[in-house]
Amino acid sequence: MPYVNVRITRDGVTAAQKAQIVAEITDTLVRVLGKKPDHTHVVIDEVDLDNWGFGGELTSELRRQR
Amino acid sequence: MPYVNVRITRDGVTAAQKAQIVAEITDTLVRVLGKKPDHTHVVIDEVDLDNWGFGGELTSELRRQR
Amino acid sequence: MPYVNVRITRDGVTAAQKAQIVAEITDTLVRVLGKKPDHTHVVIDEVDLDNWGFGGELTSELRRQR
Amino acid sequence: MPYVNVRITRDGVTAAQKAQIVAEITDTLVRVLGKKPDHTHVVIDEVDLDNWGFGGELTSELRRQR
Amino acid sequence: MPYVNVRITRDGVTAAQKAQIVAEITDTLVRVLGKKPDHTHVVIDEVDLDNWGFGGELTSELRRQR
Amino acid sequence: MPYVNVRITRDGVTAAQKAQIVAEITDTLVRVLGKKPDHTHVVIDEVDLDNWGFGGELTSELRRQR
Repeated sequence: MPYVNVRITRDGVTAAQKAQIVAEITDTLVRVLGKKPDHTHVVIDEVDLDNWGFGGELTSELRRQR
Repeated sequence: MPYVNVRITRDGVTAAQKAQIVAEITDTLVRVLGKKPDHTHVVIDEVDLDNWGFGGELTSELRRQR
Repeated sequence: MPYVNVRITRDGVTAAQKAQIVAEITDTLVRVLGKKPDHTHVVIDEVDLDNWGFGGELTSELRRQR
Repeated sequence: MPYVNVRITRDGVTAAQKAQIVAEITDTLVRVLGKKPDHTHVVIDEVDLDNWGFGGELTSELRRQR
Repeated sequence: MPYVNVRITRDGVTAAQKAQIVAEITDTLVRVLGKKPDHTHVVIDEVDLDNWGFGGELTSELRRQR
Repeated sequence: MPYVNVRITRDGVTAAQKAQIVAEITDTLVRVLGKKPDHTHVVIDEVDLDNWGFGGELTSELRRQR
Protein backbone atom coordinates (compact mmCIF):
# COMPACT_ATOMS: atom_id res chain seq x y z
CA MET A 1 0.00 0.00 0.00
CA PRO A 2 2.48 2.58 -1.09
CA TYR A 3 2.10 6.29 -0.67
CA VAL A 4 4.68 8.35 -2.57
CA ASN A 5 5.21 12.08 -2.18
CA VAL A 6 7.26 13.80 -4.88
CA ARG A 7 8.33 17.32 -3.99
CA ILE A 8 9.79 19.49 -6.77
CA THR A 9 10.21 23.18 -7.45
CA ARG A 10 7.31 24.88 -9.25
CA ASP A 11 8.70 25.17 -12.78
CA GLY A 12 5.81 24.81 -15.18
CA VAL A 13 5.65 21.02 -15.11
CA THR A 14 2.84 19.95 -17.46
CA ALA A 15 0.00 17.54 -16.75
CA ALA A 16 1.56 15.19 -19.31
CA GLN A 17 4.85 15.18 -17.40
CA LYS A 18 3.01 14.60 -14.12
CA ALA A 19 1.08 11.70 -15.70
CA GLN A 20 4.34 10.15 -16.87
CA ILE A 21 5.93 10.49 -13.42
CA VAL A 22 2.90 8.88 -11.78
CA ALA A 23 2.80 6.06 -14.36
CA GLU A 24 6.52 5.28 -14.05
CA ILE A 25 6.73 5.40 -10.25
CA THR A 26 3.62 3.23 -9.96
CA ASP A 27 5.10 0.79 -12.47
CA THR A 28 8.33 0.64 -10.46
CA LEU A 29 6.49 -0.22 -7.24
CA VAL A 30 4.29 -2.80 -8.94
CA ARG A 31 7.20 -4.47 -10.74
CA VAL A 32 9.87 -4.35 -8.01
CA LEU A 33 7.72 -4.87 -4.92
CA GLY A 34 4.58 -6.54 -6.25
CA LYS A 35 2.33 -3.71 -5.05
CA LYS A 36 -1.20 -3.34 -6.45
CA PRO A 37 -1.78 -0.25 -8.60
CA ASP A 38 -5.12 0.33 -6.85
CA HIS A 39 -3.31 0.68 -3.53
CA THR A 40 -0.66 3.04 -4.89
CA HIS A 41 -0.97 6.80 -4.46
CA VAL A 42 1.56 9.30 -5.83
CA VAL A 43 1.16 12.93 -4.75
CA ILE A 44 3.22 15.68 -6.41
CA ASP A 45 3.89 18.89 -4.47
CA GLU A 46 5.15 21.87 -6.46
CA VAL A 47 7.06 24.29 -4.23
CA ASP A 48 7.59 27.98 -5.02
CA LEU A 49 11.23 28.94 -5.62
CA ASP A 50 11.10 31.29 -2.61
CA ASN A 51 10.15 28.34 -0.41
CA TRP A 52 12.87 25.83 -1.33
CA GLY A 53 16.24 26.39 0.28
CA PHE A 54 19.36 24.60 -0.86
CA GLY A 55 22.93 25.10 0.32
CA GLY A 56 21.68 27.75 2.74
CA GLU A 57 20.00 29.94 0.11
CA LEU A 58 16.58 30.20 -1.51
CA THR A 59 16.34 28.63 -4.97
CA SER A 60 14.95 31.93 -6.28
CA GLU A 61 18.17 33.66 -5.19
CA LEU A 62 20.41 30.85 -6.49
CA ARG A 63 18.87 31.18 -9.95
CA ARG A 64 19.35 34.95 -10.02
CA GLN A 65 23.05 34.38 -9.32
CA ARG A 66 23.57 31.95 -12.17
CA MET B 1 1.88 15.93 21.17
CA PRO B 2 0.20 14.80 18.04
CA TYR B 3 0.69 16.29 14.62
CA VAL B 4 -1.78 15.09 12.01
CA ASN B 5 -1.55 15.76 8.28
CA VAL B 6 -4.68 15.11 6.24
CA ARG B 7 -4.09 15.10 2.49
CA ILE B 8 -7.15 15.17 0.22
CA THR B 9 -7.92 16.18 -3.35
CA ARG B 10 -8.95 19.81 -3.85
CA ASP B 11 -12.71 19.47 -4.26
CA GLY B 12 -14.29 22.57 -2.78
CA VAL B 13 -14.19 21.42 0.82
CA THR B 14 -15.77 24.18 2.95
CA ALA B 15 -14.36 25.79 6.09
CA ALA B 16 -17.21 24.18 8.02
CA GLN B 17 -16.19 20.73 6.80
CA LYS B 18 -12.56 21.43 7.66
CA ALA B 19 -13.60 22.59 11.13
CA GLN B 20 -15.55 19.38 11.65
CA ILE B 21 -12.61 17.23 10.51
CA VAL B 22 -10.26 19.07 12.87
CA ALA B 23 -12.73 18.81 15.78
CA GLU B 24 -13.36 15.09 15.29
CA ILE B 25 -9.73 14.04 14.78
CA THR B 26 -8.68 16.08 17.81
CA ASP B 27 -11.48 14.50 19.84
CA THR B 28 -10.34 11.02 18.75
CA LEU B 29 -6.76 11.65 19.89
CA VAL B 30 -7.85 13.19 23.19
CA ARG B 31 -10.32 10.40 23.96
CA VAL B 32 -8.35 7.35 22.75
CA LEU B 33 -4.82 8.41 23.69
CA GLY B 34 -5.34 11.04 26.39
CA LYS B 35 -3.60 13.75 24.33
CA LYS B 36 -4.07 17.42 25.26
CA PRO B 37 -6.01 19.50 22.70
CA ASP B 38 -3.49 22.33 23.13
CA HIS B 39 -0.73 20.01 21.91
CA THR B 40 -2.71 18.71 18.94
CA HIS B 41 -2.21 20.16 15.46
CA VAL B 42 -4.17 19.01 12.40
CA VAL B 43 -3.03 20.34 9.02
CA ILE B 44 -5.16 19.78 5.91
CA ASP B 45 -3.45 19.80 2.50
CA GLU B 46 -5.70 20.12 -0.55
CA VAL B 47 -4.02 18.66 -3.63
CA ASP B 48 -4.91 19.60 -7.22
CA LEU B 49 -6.41 16.74 -9.26
CA ASP B 50 -3.47 16.95 -11.69
CA ASN B 51 -1.10 16.31 -8.78
CA TRP B 52 -2.66 13.20 -7.24
CA GLY B 53 -1.95 9.93 -9.00
CA PHE B 54 -3.85 6.76 -8.23
CA GLY B 55 -3.60 3.40 -9.95
CA GLY B 56 -0.95 4.85 -12.24
CA GLU B 57 -3.08 7.74 -13.55
CA LEU B 58 -3.78 11.32 -12.53
CA THR B 59 -7.06 11.83 -10.67
CA SER B 60 -7.98 14.52 -13.22
CA GLU B 61 -7.75 11.90 -15.99
CA LEU B 62 -9.56 9.23 -13.97
CA ARG B 63 -12.52 11.56 -13.47
CA ARG B 64 -12.73 12.39 -17.18
CA GLN B 65 -12.97 8.67 -17.92
CA ARG B 66 -15.86 8.06 -15.56
CA MET C 1 -8.43 9.72 -1.86
CA PRO C 2 -7.27 10.73 1.54
CA TYR C 3 -3.89 9.98 3.03
CA VAL C 4 -3.59 10.78 6.73
CA ASN C 5 -0.38 10.76 8.72
CA VAL C 6 -0.70 10.75 12.51
CA ARG C 7 2.52 11.48 14.34
CA ILE C 8 2.63 10.86 18.09
CA THR C 9 5.27 10.21 20.70
CA ARG C 10 6.18 6.55 21.27
CA ASP C 11 4.33 5.80 24.50
CA GLY C 12 3.23 2.20 24.37
CA VAL C 13 0.14 2.76 22.25
CA THR C 14 -1.56 -0.63 21.77
CA ALA C 15 -2.74 -2.20 18.51
CA ALA C 16 -6.31 -1.85 19.79
CA GLN C 17 -5.83 1.91 20.27
CA LYS C 18 -4.28 2.20 16.81
CA ALA C 19 -7.21 0.28 15.32
CA GLN C 20 -9.65 2.65 17.01
CA ILE C 21 -7.79 5.73 15.74
CA VAL C 22 -7.76 4.35 12.19
CA ALA C 23 -11.46 3.42 12.37
CA GLU C 24 -12.55 6.81 13.73
CA ILE C 25 -10.46 8.97 11.38
CA THR C 26 -11.63 6.90 8.39
CA ASP C 27 -15.22 7.25 9.56
CA THR C 28 -14.78 11.03 9.86
CA LEU C 29 -13.50 11.35 6.30
CA VAL C 30 -16.21 9.06 4.90
CA ARG C 31 -19.01 10.82 6.76
CA VAL C 32 -17.90 14.47 6.43
CA LEU C 33 -16.35 14.39 2.95
CA GLY C 34 -17.94 11.36 1.30
CA LYS C 35 -14.58 9.63 0.80
CA LYS C 36 -14.46 5.90 0.05
CA PRO C 37 -12.92 3.75 2.82
CA ASP C 38 -10.99 1.77 0.18
CA HIS C 39 -9.22 4.97 -0.89
CA THR C 40 -8.40 6.04 2.66
CA HIS C 41 -5.00 5.35 4.19
CA VAL C 42 -4.05 6.30 7.76
CA VAL C 43 -0.40 5.90 8.74
CA ILE C 44 0.69 6.26 12.37
CA ASP C 45 4.29 7.26 13.12
CA GLU C 46 5.52 6.74 16.68
CA VAL C 47 8.39 9.08 17.48
CA ASP C 48 10.96 8.46 20.23
CA LEU C 49 10.87 10.99 23.07
CA ASP C 50 14.44 12.06 22.24
CA ASN C 51 13.30 12.93 18.71
CA TRP C 52 10.30 15.17 19.45
CA GLY C 53 11.08 18.73 20.45
CA PHE C 54 8.49 21.03 21.94
CA GLY C 55 8.96 24.53 23.29
CA GLY C 56 12.64 24.29 22.42
CA GLU C 57 13.36 21.14 24.44
CA LEU C 58 13.25 17.40 23.83
CA THR C 59 10.15 15.66 25.18
CA SER C 60 12.42 13.23 27.04
CA GLU C 61 13.92 16.18 28.95
CA LEU C 62 10.54 17.86 29.52
CA ARG C 63 9.21 14.70 31.18
CA ARG C 64 12.24 14.41 33.46
CA GLN C 65 11.56 17.95 34.67
CA ARG C 66 7.94 17.33 35.56
CA MET D 1 15.74 19.60 -6.53
CA PRO D 2 13.41 16.75 -5.95
CA TYR D 3 12.76 15.10 -2.64
CA VAL D 4 10.77 11.88 -2.85
CA ASN D 5 9.32 9.99 0.09
CA VAL D 6 8.20 6.42 -0.54
CA ARG D 7 6.11 4.94 2.27
CA ILE D 8 5.44 1.20 2.19
CA THR D 9 4.51 -1.49 4.68
CA ARG D 10 7.43 -3.27 6.38
CA ASP D 11 7.54 -6.55 4.49
CA GLY D 12 11.14 -7.64 4.28
CA VAL D 13 12.09 -5.44 1.34
CA THR D 14 15.76 -6.12 0.54
CA ALA D 15 18.54 -3.60 0.04
CA ALA D 16 18.68 -4.67 -3.62
CA GLN D 17 15.00 -3.86 -4.07
CA LYS D 18 15.47 -0.50 -2.33
CA ALA D 19 18.43 0.24 -4.61
CA GLN D 20 16.34 -0.53 -7.67
CA ILE D 21 13.48 1.69 -6.49
CA VAL D 22 15.90 4.57 -5.84
CA ALA D 23 17.61 4.09 -9.21
CA GLU D 24 14.36 3.96 -11.17
CA ILE D 25 12.63 6.89 -9.47
CA THR D 26 15.77 9.01 -9.85
CA ASP D 27 15.98 8.02 -13.52
CA THR D 28 12.32 9.01 -14.01
CA LEU D 29 12.87 12.47 -12.53
CA VAL D 30 16.09 13.02 -14.50
CA ARG D 31 14.57 11.87 -17.79
CA VAL D 32 11.09 13.40 -17.54
CA LEU D 33 11.89 16.65 -15.73
CA GLY D 34 15.59 17.19 -16.42
CA LYS D 35 16.49 17.06 -12.71
CA LYS D 36 20.11 16.52 -11.64
CA PRO D 37 20.79 13.21 -9.89
CA ASP D 38 22.97 15.03 -7.33
CA HIS D 39 19.96 17.10 -6.29
CA THR D 40 17.62 14.12 -6.04
CA HIS D 41 16.90 12.44 -2.71
CA VAL D 42 14.64 9.41 -2.31
CA VAL D 43 13.77 8.34 1.24
CA ILE D 44 11.99 5.03 1.89
CA ASP D 45 9.92 4.66 5.07
CA GLU D 46 8.93 1.13 6.07
CA VAL D 47 5.81 1.16 8.25
CA ASP D 48 4.84 -1.63 10.65
CA LEU D 49 1.61 -3.46 9.72
CA ASP D 50 0.03 -2.33 12.99
CA ASN D 51 0.65 1.29 11.99
CA TRP D 52 -0.87 1.35 8.48
CA GLY D 53 -4.63 1.61 8.31
CA PHE D 54 -6.57 0.98 5.13
CA GLY D 55 -10.33 0.90 4.64
CA GLY D 56 -10.75 1.62 8.35
CA GLU D 57 -8.69 -1.35 9.60
CA LEU D 58 -5.07 -2.03 10.43
CA THR D 59 -3.13 -3.87 7.73
CA SER D 60 -2.11 -6.46 10.34
CA GLU D 61 -5.78 -7.26 10.94
CA LEU D 62 -6.65 -7.24 7.22
CA ARG D 63 -3.97 -9.84 6.55
CA ARG D 64 -5.21 -12.10 9.35
CA GLN D 65 -8.67 -12.06 7.75
CA ARG D 66 -7.48 -13.12 4.33
CA MET E 1 21.86 14.57 3.74
CA PRO E 2 19.27 16.47 5.63
CA TYR E 3 15.83 17.34 4.35
CA VAL E 4 13.94 19.80 6.53
CA ASN E 5 10.27 20.69 6.13
CA VAL E 6 9.07 23.82 7.94
CA ARG E 7 5.30 24.16 8.07
CA ILE E 8 3.86 27.50 9.19
CA THR E 9 0.60 29.38 8.80
CA ARG E 10 0.38 31.65 5.74
CA ASP E 11 0.91 35.07 7.33
CA GLY E 12 2.75 37.22 4.81
CA VAL E 13 6.22 35.88 5.55
CA THR E 14 8.66 37.74 3.28
CA ALA E 15 11.34 36.26 1.04
CA ALA E 16 13.95 37.88 3.31
CA GLN E 17 12.50 36.07 6.34
CA LYS E 18 12.42 32.79 4.42
CA ALA E 19 16.05 33.30 3.37
CA GLN E 20 17.04 33.87 7.00
CA ILE E 21 15.21 30.76 8.16
CA VAL E 22 16.90 28.67 5.46
CA ALA E 23 20.32 30.13 6.24
CA GLU E 24 20.01 29.58 10.01
CA ILE E 25 18.60 26.05 9.86
CA THR E 26 21.27 25.04 7.33
CA ASP E 27 23.94 26.58 9.56
CA THR E 28 22.60 24.64 12.55
CA LEU E 29 22.81 21.31 10.71
CA VAL E 30 26.27 22.05 9.33
CA ARG E 31 27.65 23.18 12.68
CA VAL E 32 25.98 20.66 15.03
CA LEU E 33 25.99 17.56 12.80
CA GLY E 34 28.74 18.27 10.27
CA LYS E 35 26.31 18.09 7.32
CA LYS E 36 27.31 19.54 3.94
CA PRO E 37 25.34 22.60 2.82
CA ASP E 38 25.09 21.15 -0.70
CA HIS E 39 23.25 18.15 0.69
CA THR E 40 20.87 20.21 2.81
CA HIS E 41 17.37 21.08 1.58
CA VAL E 42 14.91 23.20 3.57
CA VAL E 43 11.35 23.41 2.23
CA ILE E 44 8.87 25.89 3.72
CA ASP E 45 5.14 25.15 3.43
CA GLU E 46 2.75 28.02 4.12
CA VAL E 47 -0.65 26.73 5.21
CA ASP E 48 -3.90 28.71 4.92
CA LEU E 49 -5.50 29.60 8.26
CA ASP E 50 -8.58 27.56 7.33
CA ASN E 51 -6.36 24.50 6.92
CA TRP E 52 -4.47 24.51 10.22
CA GLY E 53 -6.34 23.17 13.21
CA PHE E 54 -5.13 23.66 16.75
CA GLY E 55 -6.85 22.69 20.00
CA GLY E 56 -9.74 21.32 17.95
CA GLU E 57 -10.48 24.54 16.04
CA LEU E 58 -9.32 26.15 12.82
CA THR E 59 -6.71 28.87 13.24
CA SER E 60 -8.94 31.21 11.23
CA GLU E 61 -11.67 30.78 13.84
CA LEU E 62 -9.27 31.06 16.78
CA ARG E 63 -8.05 34.42 15.50
CA ARG E 64 -11.59 35.75 15.09
CA GLN E 65 -12.25 34.91 18.74
CA ARG E 66 -9.25 36.79 20.07
CA MET F 1 2.18 27.33 14.91
CA PRO F 2 5.19 25.80 13.29
CA TYR F 3 5.77 22.13 12.77
CA VAL F 4 9.28 21.25 11.62
CA ASN F 5 10.40 17.83 10.41
CA VAL F 6 14.15 17.23 10.21
CA ARG F 7 15.10 14.10 8.31
CA ILE F 8 18.70 12.91 8.55
CA THR F 9 20.58 9.67 8.07
CA ARG F 10 20.90 7.47 11.17
CA ASP F 11 24.49 8.15 12.21
CA GLY F 12 24.63 7.98 15.98
CA VAL F 13 23.37 11.49 16.63
CA THR F 14 23.33 12.01 20.41
CA ALA F 15 20.47 13.32 22.54
CA ALA F 16 22.61 16.39 23.24
CA GLN F 17 22.95 17.10 19.52
CA LYS F 18 19.21 16.61 19.04
CA ALA F 19 18.51 18.97 21.92
CA GLN F 20 20.74 21.60 20.35
CA ILE F 21 19.05 21.24 16.95
CA VAL F 22 15.62 21.60 18.55
CA ALA F 23 16.72 24.60 20.62
CA GLU F 24 18.30 26.41 17.67
CA ILE F 25 15.49 25.80 15.16
CA THR F 26 12.90 26.86 17.73
CA ASP F 27 14.95 29.99 18.48
CA THR F 28 15.11 30.79 14.74
CA LEU F 29 11.34 30.56 14.35
CA VAL F 30 10.67 32.59 17.49
CA ARG F 31 13.17 35.31 16.58
CA VAL F 32 12.57 35.59 12.81
CA LEU F 33 8.83 34.97 12.67
CA GLY F 34 7.63 35.80 16.19
CA LYS F 35 6.30 32.28 16.77
CA LYS F 36 5.54 31.08 20.30
CA PRO F 37 7.82 28.31 21.60
CA ASP F 38 4.78 26.51 23.04
CA HIS F 39 3.31 26.23 19.55
CA THR F 40 6.55 24.99 17.98
CA HIS F 41 7.17 21.30 17.40
CA VAL F 42 10.39 19.91 15.89
CA VAL F 43 10.42 16.21 15.01
CA ILE F 44 13.67 14.48 14.00
CA ASP F 45 13.49 11.37 11.81
CA GLU F 46 16.63 9.24 11.60
CA VAL F 47 16.67 7.20 8.39
CA ASP F 48 18.68 4.00 7.90
CA LEU F 49 21.46 4.26 5.30
CA ASP F 50 19.76 1.57 3.20
CA ASN F 51 16.63 3.72 3.06
CA TRP F 52 18.10 7.05 1.87
CA GLY F 53 18.87 7.30 -1.83
CA PHE F 54 20.97 10.08 -3.27
CA GLY F 55 22.13 10.52 -6.85
CA GLY F 56 20.38 7.27 -7.75
CA GLU F 57 22.17 5.08 -5.18
CA LEU F 58 21.61 4.07 -1.57
CA THR F 59 23.68 6.01 0.97
CA SER F 60 24.92 2.67 2.36
CA GLU F 61 26.37 1.84 -1.08
CA LEU F 62 27.79 5.35 -1.60
CA ARG F 63 29.72 5.09 1.68
CA ARG F 64 31.17 1.70 0.77
CA GLN F 65 32.50 3.21 -2.45
CA ARG F 66 34.29 6.09 -0.75
